[in-house]
Amino acid sequence: MSANLDNLRVVLVGTRNPLNMGAAARAMSNFGAQRLRVVNPYEVAFREARSAVDAAELLSHAEEFRSVADAVEDCRLVVGTTAAGRRELRHRLLRLEAGSRAIRRRLAAGPVALLFGSEKVGLSNVDLSHCDWLMRIPTRAQHGSMNLGQAVAVCLYELVRAGKTPRETNQTPPAKARELEIITQLLFGALRSGGYVKPRLVASTEENVRRMVRRMQLNSSDAEVWLGMLRQIAWKLAGDNSEG
Amino acid sequence: MSANLDNLRVVLVGTRNPLNMGAAARAMSNFGAQRLRVVNPYEVAFREARSAVDAAELLSHAEEFRSVADAVEDCRLVVGTTAAGRRELRHRLLRLEAGSRAIRRRLAAGPVALLFGSEKVGLSNVDLSHCDWLMRIPTRAQHGSMNLGQAVAVCLYELVRAGKTPRETNQTPPAKARELEIITQLLFGALRSGGYVKPRLVASTEENVRRMVRRMQLNSSDAEVWLGMLRQIAWKLAGDNSEG
Repeated sequence: MSANLDNLRVVLVGTRNPLNMGAAARAMSNFGAQRLRVVNPYEVAFREARSAVDAAELLSHAEEFRSVADAVEDCRLVVGTTAAGRRELRHRLLRLEAGSRAIRRRLAAGPVALLFGSEKVGLSNVDLSHCDWLMRIPTRAQHGSMNLGQAVAVCLYELVRAGKTPRETNQTPPAKARELEIITQLLFGALRSGGYVKPRLVASTEENVRRMVRRMQLNSSDAEVWLGMLRQIAWKLAGDNSEG
Repeated sequence: MSANLDNLRVVLVGTRNPLNMGAAARAMSNFGAQRLRVVNPYEVAFREARSAVDAAELLSHAEEFRSVADAVEDCRLVVGTTAAGRRELRHRLLRLEAGSRAIRRRLAAGPVALLFGSEKVGLSNVDLSHCDWLMRIPTRAQHGSMNLGQAVAVCLYELVRAGKTPRETNQTPPAKARELEIITQLLFGALRSGGYVKPRLVASTEENVRRMVRRMQLNSSDAEVWLGMLRQIAWKLAGDNSEG
């Protein structure tokens, strides 16, 4: 194999069909990706997929999570996959080829999560808000939505297709998703204390802040600085509020 | 779509599973290939696949043949697909990428057949004897055999992949330096009010904040949001300070 996918985490979110889960696992095995994570799968689907023959070992080691946040916590890059014509306005969107190049560069530095949504609805807005950017397979506008197992196969093929994994030289590694989420919560907290968040828009504002923090593409040392700055601001705002 | 697949004939030989036939048809529809030919399909499989919803129209126009010879009769190039480690000795074998380049060149001239064998045994030696050459998807030696629908998806993706330069859709222009500087000043101000900045390090901290804001690579609409957020926090901190 050309690229090394040891650091890749394939994350299936809300998968319903055991055949699709089995097909995704089989494609992973075909292309040398070993680490499957599932978020809130339909229990029956997960159980049935595990009893299938293809890629049984890979499925038996699949890790199960309650939320996307938990599933990507240790990852330094989180990429969502999406069909044509959806939500593009709010996220940076790369075509599969360019996106795969970016992922290959990052795989040398640490874990990368690649998210696939459920068969019916894809990834939700909340799921997407955890993504650094989105990647799209160049399907036709008239029939963009792919079968889940096929989408996984095409993405993994593109990841291993081209040459060796390029190495990122001498760069500070990207921040972990966990750090980004703490930054999100601190910033959102500061905005609430500061009266920036309208009561009726609490949820959507939090989502927007989360997305914006991902777009900052922080490296781990900048993330540390941001954590320090925001903690200080939050502390100050809280202190003033409790006195006032 | 970049490549024109009007001249491509996807030929499924001896397919048993209706789900695989449906999946192959769906991938064809996703990537813009319209002409499906089936050779000796299991009757039940063909009937069931036709009644599935995905790509139903494509399946209803599928042509049925008794032999590979009949199915490829009008084609000017016949390419077989194969898993790793099989029969390579008797045929010219190209990796998917090189093979797809060759197919794309021929598609301009006339019909090209791309053959996929049955789930269990692949293409027989007789089937292969109709092929000009074989193409192989670069799967792992330890687990080379792909699911049929996934193999079709990956091959068609590779056929349409190249060609036009992929365009990154929908990018907001980067923020202006002026906006970045206002963000820098607001953030730095908030950090001073918050007690984050040590008196002896005022100048170097300001520099670090400026650098960090530039590394955020903000686009103009995110810059606007940051301006709003930071103004609110600054206003809140200043108000609290003047009262305290």
